[in-house]
Amino acid sequence: MTVQEAVNKLDELELKEFALGHAMGILSYDGATAAPKKSYIPRGKTMGCLAGEAYKLTTDKSAVAILDTLRSHADELDDNTIRRLELREKNLKEMRAVPIEQYVEYTELMNEADSAWHEAKEKSDYAIFEPYLRRVIDFTKLFAEKVNPDIAPYDYCLDKYEEGLTMQKAEAFFSALRERIVPLIARVGAAEAPDESVAKVLFPIEKQRALSDILMDKLGLPRDRCAIGETEHPFTTNFTPDDVRITTHYHEKAFLSSMYSVIHEGGHALYELGVDPKFSFTCLSGGVTMGIHESQSRFFENIVGRSRGFIDNLYPDLVRLCPEIGKYSAQDIYRAANKAQPSLIRTEADEVTYPLHIMVRYEMEKKMINGEVNTAELPEMWNAYYKEYLGVTVPNDREGILQDSHWSGAGIGYFPSYALGSAYGAQYLAKMREEMDFDAVVASGDLAPIRAWLGEKIWQYGSSKSPEWILKNALGAPFDPGYYLDYLENKMKDVYGI
Amino acid sequence: MTVQEAVNKLDELELKEFALGHAMGILSYDGATAAPKKSYIPRGKTMGCLAGEAYKLTTDKSAVAILDTLRSHADELDDNTIRRLELREKNLKEMRAVPIEQYVEYTELMNEADSAWHEAKEKSDYAIFEPYLRRVIDFTKLFAEKVNPDIAPYDYCLDKYEEGLTMQKAEAFFSALRERIVPLIARVGAAEAPDESVAKVLFPIEKQRALSDILMDKLGLPRDRCAIGETEHPFTTNFTPDDVRITTHYHEKAFLSSMYSVIHEGGHALYELGVDPKFSFTCLSGGVTMGIHESQSRFFENIVGRSRGFIDNLYPDLVRLCPEIGKYSAQDIYRAANKAQPSLIRTEADEVTYPLHIMVRYEMEKKMINGEVNTAELPEMWNAYYKEYLGVTVPNDREGILQDSHWSGAGIGYFPSYALGSAYGAQYLAKMREEMDFDAVVASGDLAPIRAWLGEKIWQYGSSKSPEWILKNALGAPFDPGYYLDYLENKMKDVYGI
Repeated sequence: MTVQEAVNKLDELELKEFALGHAMGILSYDGATAAPKKSYIPRGKTMGCLAGEAYKLTTDKSAVAILDTLRSHADELDDNTIRRLELREKNLKEMRAVPIEQYVEYTELMNEADSAWHEAKEKSDYAIFEPYLRRVIDFTKLFAEKVNPDIAPYDYCLDKYEEGLTMQKAEAFFSALRERIVPLIARVGAAEAPDESVAKVLFPIEKQRALSDILMDKLGLPRDRCAIGETEHPFTTNFTPDDVRITTHYHEKAFLSSMYSVIHEGGHALYELGVDPKFSFTCLSGGVTMGIHESQSRFFENIVGRSRGFIDNLYPDLVRLCPEIGKYSAQDIYRAANKAQPSLIRTEADEVTYPLHIMVRYEMEKKMINGEVNTAELPEMWNAYYKEYLGVTVPNDREGILQDSHWSGAGIGYFPSYALGSAYGAQYLAKMREEMDFDAVVASGDLAPIRAWLGEKIWQYGSSKSPEWILKNALGAPFDPGYYLDYLENKMKDVYGI
Repeated sequence: MTVQEAVNKLDELELKEFALGHAMGILSYDGATAAPKKSYIPRGKTMGCLAGEAYKLTTDKSAVAILDTLRSHADELDDNTIRRLELREKNLKEMRAVPIEQYVEYTELMNEADSAWHEAKEKSDYAIFEPYLRRVIDFTKLFAEKVNPDIAPYDYCLDKYEEGLTMQKAEAFFSALRERIVPLIARVGAAEAPDESVAKVLFPIEKQRALSDILMDKLGLPRDRCAIGETEHPFTTNFTPDDVRITTHYHEKAFLSSMYSVIHEGGHALYELGVDPKFSFTCLSGGVTMGIHESQSRFFENIVGRSRGFIDNLYPDLVRLCPEIGKYSAQDIYRAANKAQPSLIRTEADEVTYPLHIMVRYEMEKKMINGEVNTAELPEMWNAYYKEYLGVTVPNDREGILQDSHWSGAGIGYFPSYALGSAYGAQYLAKMREEMDFDAVVASGDLAPIRAWLGEKIWQYGSSKSPEWILKNALGAPFDPGYYLDYLENKMKDVYGI
């Protein structure tokens, strides 16, 4: 097989992998948005079949032969082909770590664990979820050992979601955060809290849907390539830059909840919509890591969406859609949207206390993977950490350990990417400020210069570069969490006058 | 390979075929309901891949070997396995009639033809669609010749949608209809037309959505197995009895349009929901032919839904949802819903003139397939037939030859099944009347006895029996279009007093 033949075969293989992944993605999206409840029965069968086909395609000896050919001609390959080769080799190593029966068992476990988690959360009964979580942990440890026995198992987990992340780096990061966030929270706690009543006005759901349309326009999401749906848990899913979906959920008396979900998911969507289409149908398509992904979503949600300029610009639309908001000023909304207070639920947390929610999960995951705690003890440990880190008492497992879906999907190691992403975003902001009057751009309502900056430095590359390369390309300097801490302190100064 | 091994392999093969078909079906449904416009680009790639895989699966020599084994032990097989064998052999013959490249070209043509038809209809410009229709006709003729050179090509087309139908049977049927429908239409035309103004009241779309929920309840559609969506052209799609979808479209000033779409599609859905689940994931799942399918949808739409009892029962809900309807009586709605008048659009046509719309298409298709007309002449021929059969002048191609989607999906031969289905339904009605007080059941609002009758005689069998067997099982007598004509005459007598 010549190099060119191998590349052609790789294109063909990845198109087939794309087709199977695309089909499974649409089946999931349909399941979450439009499908009747019992559709899970045929969907389970189909997903099992397609996942089995995908496994066979990826691990088949003809697929391995393509990689072998490319590897033996590595010095003749261009950068993109080298990156494809590396990503595939990593993935193949993971898939071949266990026999196919076990791999299928693992994918089936994720489906079952997800159902069990939903039921457990609904009933606030951890015991329903516990046996599944135990098996998820066992599988995670097994993969860690088989794929990369030379590194600590939890380092393997971290690297899975943020290429290159280790416990050492994560802990340096968290300790830098802790040093300035803990005293900041104390100062905020001593100051007068903003009035939150504007966040609780009755905002009819039909009108909130109209608000979502306005927000999507303001973010610059092209509707012919990006649709919005409704689900209990908001998420983004993507296929190519021609088809990206976001979802939100509406609560009549909590319009900020959907508003910031739309902006957050909109940030993920902008990233996916901005990837160079030449990567479509290959393994270089799509955002590179969860850390870089969350750096987009949390940038738009918080740095853009929770800014005074953005809220000022949106204010007339808010009043038009919900006249009761006219009793409040834009400044009232700004303060309500930035109220900082230790709380129970991560996804509803403010920017300042948010990283503490992540640190709780980080500490717990580390102990889970290192075997320092058994699954039966986890709820108690969760509650103790929330008391210690956030000072709040967890009333039940539903608002405690069962709140997030990640572990049911075997996403152990995912959480740190949220905090990292937030910190990356603050450093983008500092860099952008060197090149544009950021506040004026946001206040103008036309975010095109911001999209252009992120598009050029980050989005266009998809997965064709490592996250380290992308960060360096965007920042022109090493990552420094000091920017994030400066940003948080300034925000609190502005909101609380402290 | 033993018989048992062959059956096991067949189960495995059909599960995979199901998975690919299910994925493609959900991709289509999503494309019609939720997807952004440009998603057609990745969807096209994925559909092409999955269709190619499905073709390979079905025609692979291992699949053929299963059939060969079963065929050589035909006398040892049970009825269901025999039927599977026969259906697969017929399908295989069709797929192998042309080489794979040509088969792929044909499936691609259907995608392209569908886009072209949409554009042509939007612009009312037949010229956009004509080259695609020409290729569709050529392919249809090619398949007819390759698959079954011993029968007339248009007989091959008819059999595809209604197993066993031939031109001879169709023409006997149509001529029986013509004999009594043409004078009936003349009598109706001479009588005073019902006032239609109730059909044009402003019925807000939110309220029409609530009406759809009520209709689905009244029909007995279980919402955990049947969901409703919104599309320009209403349709039903099904996967297993655990997942069936119907769609409708809402127009603020034409509530009967959506109402009868929901009931029509609901009839299709009831059929699919009532198939014995033991046939799921095999080629015996799903309704047997389009004729039997349309006999369910048109039974519920017309015989149930356009009856005085059904409308009486629904009336309080209609007035509650749309108080302006309170100015009219249930009898006014009944008469408006049954107004008979020659018109341009098949899907909006009344029960009496409906078969004439079908006859136009039948005559044209026959000439198309027999090469008696070239595609450039078709619009003129369409308009001439509408003048001759219905006495109406077609103002443009959008409301003329471009109105239906069937030909763009290569559905030549499909239309007669609508008229046949309507006629089957009238004979079910006569049979049901022997066993229940049909009018009282409909007026009671609880259609369970009707569902039980259809479920037992028809639905449960899925595709495990031929349509002839099913009809005979339901009717206990040969099919006789006289029942249909009696029904139509009685209906018009009741509505027009003629």
